[in-house]
Amino acid sequence: MKKRIFSGMRPTGRLHIGNYLGALHNWVQLQDEFDCVYCVVDIHALTSLEDTSQLKSLTREMVLDIMAGGVDPEKSILFVQSQVPEVAELSAYLSMVTPLSWLLRVPTFKEKAKLQPHNVNYGLVGYPVLMTADILLYKAQVVPVGQDQMPHLELAREIVRRFNSQYSPTFPEPEGRLTRFPMVLGLDGEKMSKQTGNLIELAITAEETTRKIMSAITDPSRRFRSDPGNPEVCNVYRLHGYFNADEVEGIGAACRTAEIGCVDCKKLLAERMNRELEPIRRRRRELESRPGYVDEVLEAGAEKARAIACRTMAEVRSRIGLD
Amino acid sequence: MKKRIFSGMRPTGRLHIGNYLGALHNWVQLQDEFDCVYCVVDIHALTSLEDTSQLKSLTREMVLDIMAGGVDPEKSILFVQSQVPEVAELSAYLSMVTPLSWLLRVPTFKEKAKLQPHNVNYGLVGYPVLMTADILLYKAQVVPVGQDQMPHLELAREIVRRFNSQYSPTFPEPEGRLTRFPMVLGLDGEKMSKQTGNLIELAITAEETTRKIMSAITDPSRRFRSDPGNPEVCNVYRLHGYFNADEVEGIGAACRTAEIGCVDCKKLLAERMNRELEPIRRRRRELESRPGYVDEVLEAGAEKARAIACRTMAEVRSRIGLD
Repeated sequence: MKKRIFSGMRPTGRLHIGNYLGALHNWVQLQDEFDCVYCVVDIHALTSLEDTSQLKSLTREMVLDIMAGGVDPEKSILFVQSQVPEVAELSAYLSMVTPLSWLLRVPTFKEKAKLQPHNVNYGLVGYPVLMTADILLYKAQVVPVGQDQMPHLELAREIVRRFNSQYSPTFPEPEGRLTRFPMVLGLDGEKMSKQTGNLIELAITAEETTRKIMSAITDPSRRFRSDPGNPEVCNVYRLHGYFNADEVEGIGAACRTAEIGCVDCKKLLAERMNRELEPIRRRRRELESRPGYVDEVLEAGAEKARAIACRTMAEVRSRIGLD
Repeated sequence: MKKRIFSGMRPTGRLHIGNYLGALHNWVQLQDEFDCVYCVVDIHALTSLEDTSQLKSLTREMVLDIMAGGVDPEKSILFVQSQVPEVAELSAYLSMVTPLSWLLRVPTFKEKAKLQPHNVNYGLVGYPVLMTADILLYKAQVVPVGQDQMPHLELAREIVRRFNSQYSPTFPEPEGRLTRFPMVLGLDGEKMSKQTGNLIELAITAEETTRKIMSAITDPSRRFRSDPGNPEVCNVYRLHGYFNADEVEGIGAACRTAEIGCVDCKKLLAERMNRELEPIRRRRRELESRPGYVDEVLEAGAEKARAIACRTMAEVRSRIGLD
């Protein structure tokens, strides 16, 4: 039997190539090896979002990219978190075995509290508890995590141990599967940000993609075509590593000796990226034209997820002694 | 249309006369004036209870007393909190509009944190949020509260204002209906406590009740039958006030002049208490002999509660933009 993986993405709207390389690509690849439960975590989004008027469309746009990118509803469960409200019930029970002090120590909580000092809400503190409930509701054994999320996973494991020992062994301790998050910066060399628009969304056209790549900052010390370049500091070079793995070494050498200029290098990258992204864009257009089908996929996904969730909750209530 | 009241009791097992005078009696009387939703809040109990092996029987014993005491399932909704898990979902959404700082300032949180310093769990901090979810799930307009619970109700009102302004007007601000909690002490003159057994449970026999009353401490400075008594400091006298209101003034006068001794005074009280409690004990015995009927009442109560809860949650999800 395949092990079960749970992974969630916050509904931030259209995916960009950073999300694609860091998460979606991974989701797609895990589908053969694991029994995958994938979720757009809209309840989690509420811990930071005060204006929720766009939430529905942000969720929808993300689902389109996820499906277009290759998450296959025949292989994996794909659903929207709020459609399986059992997660809130499990989260309530886990809340009672989770010391407040554990949560206040989580580094991401401290960071968030600094980012939204006017909105340090109770739900924000409990973010990792809700995340743990997501994992445990499906009794996932494996969770793909980036290095920065390791404290969350360690906390999830501690909550499991506490629950299992206070009641009786109910949940497996989820293992982290470390995912290498690519160091891809925005086109301006800064952190990717929807605000500054320095990123490339999967859903834009090939022409827009090319235009964006052509405007990207490369090695700032290479001022003339004849200057040798420094690929290590060049974001375009990094992207070659992901979208043009076969040629990347040669390109690095050619840059260092000024055999290739930035314009040609970018053209090549844009061509390779468009080659990889074109099928995704095509599938996305197809999905956009069939909204009823996407609704059906999400409904069927929520139904499958809910079936597992209901079994888990019946067991949880019985372990606690609530049934 | 009658206004709706919500009120909950934590499942502490059999009710004693303090609970009866302070809460149950009130619940019974409110039934004609209000549309009452009464709940045994077993999820709340988990914030303090680490060993839950008795939870089910504590809940059951309390339900028997509530029904025996006169809460009528034909008039009111009576159910067990965990049977309507929508409360956890609403609580999750309210968590995101409730600042952590509000919760850390609640006096009962500070007291609890002192009482269970090894178990200051995340759920304990959120106790008032879950309580607010209980009230709002049924859109109750009125909540009976003791003076000590006023901060919880004020917090509930603030959460409502925050939710209504962040999304759109959805919930009424619940009004507190101040309930006078009688100053009844235990038989030893200390605070009533299950541990010391200094209390009288509704479900004990008339003989036990009489025996307990006969052993109660009265005015400690009245050492001889001929000494005049001081009813103001006498707990037996206080109980006359509740169970023997017609005669209480005369008894006070007779005590002050030593016309009546403590033994006769206690005998009279026991007789009056037993007269009031006998029908409750009889109904309790009937209910104990019909466990299937009690199950049915709780199931029907949960079903009615869930119907209201589901309507509220559909509205809440739509207001937030999750549907």
